[in-house]
Amino acid sequence: MPYIPLEDHLPGITGLLEYRVDTAAPIRALTQCLLRGPSTLTEGERELIATIVSHRNECKFCSYAHTAAANTLLEEENTTAEITKDITTASVSDKMKALLIIASQVQVSGKNVTGESVQQAKDAGATDIEIHDTVLIAALFCLYNRYVDGLATVTPVDPGFYKGLGQRLKEHGYNRLPQGYDHLKKTNL
Amino acid sequence: MPYIPLEDHLPGITGLLEYRVDTAAPIRALTQCLLRGPSTLTEGERELIATIVSHRNECKFCSYAHTAAANTLLEEENTTAEITKDITTASVSDKMKALLIIASQVQVSGKNVTGESVQQAKDAGATDIEIHDTVLIAALFCLYNRYVDGLATVTPVDPGFYKGLGQRLKEHGYNRLPQGYDHLKKTNL
Repeated sequence: MPYIPLEDHLPGITGLLEYRVDTAAPIRALTQCLLRGPSTLTEGERELIATIVSHRNECKFCSYAHTAAANTLLEEENTTAEITKDITTASVSDKMKALLIIASQVQVSGKNVTGESVQQAKDAGATDIEIHDTVLIAALFCLYNRYVDGLATVTPVDPGFYKGLGQRLKEHGYNRLPQGYDHLKKTNL
Repeated sequence: MPYIPLEDHLPGITGLLEYRVDTAAPIRALTQCLLRGPSTLTEGERELIATIVSHRNECKFCSYAHTAAANTLLEEENTTAEITKDITTASVSDKMKALLIIASQVQVSGKNVTGESVQQAKDAGATDIEIHDTVLIAALFCLYNRYVDGLATVTPVDPGFYKGLGQRLKEHGYNRLPQGYDHLKKTNL
């Protein structure tokens, strides 16, 4: 049961984003910019960064949600399963391996990122902005995971919930849904 | 030396906020809302939450900057020194002790926040929104600390730098400085 009164039909982050809409607005804007804005990383690749960080922070809601979003965007379910098992053997490019390793270092502490891991990413073709965005996306999900678990929000057990949420995140991104999308309100991330 | 090209005269977070201004805008907005917006917690109290999290994440730039901001707002330097040593014996209210303990739990993991620590805060008079904001401020500084250290930004050693930055954060908050404040550009947080 959440530590503060949240709407029963809005689990995980969704209830928090409705609890205080003035703080939710810049959180949504930052996420939309980083995960859906113009980038040389695909939306699926950026969702993999969200997934690995949420998985390592053991935040079930975020982990399930972004696994579903990545699976929907990538149109397959193997890559998310592989990266959470072992980044180095996953079926992703060498650049993505290096960026996912940097994200995993950020998950523990910013200080854990090494010059070597950054150089490895650069050697594999990562640009400065891709490295910047990887660190900031990883840091943002360290915020999300703590926000969601720190207030003991509810984690649905129905896999269908996350499938719907993943679809919503693919089709509508992280902006607040406008009027007329009431049928999606239960996943109003 | 930072892992990506940042302006030499902008250390710590300040260079990152100029590196990508479209992601910086919502980060600034969220921080301004949480740390300077209407709240039953004083600005000094909210800076104490930023300080304890940055201190425990061992992010020197953020720790020095928010210690300076808190000192300036509180008009004394004892409280920041006391809370980083031992929250339970610091000269703050029982409510602030409980909130700082929650923030310290969030610093480690959202899962570390316990029903007992939340109840202790409520028993000491903390409202739901104060508990919400404490968790979100702590989570936000887990983002900042990782962003600043994950890209190996520069940490000035001159205490005068942080004193100036603390004054700037008291007087102008977290919004981007408008034109005409060029004399503050070196601390354009």
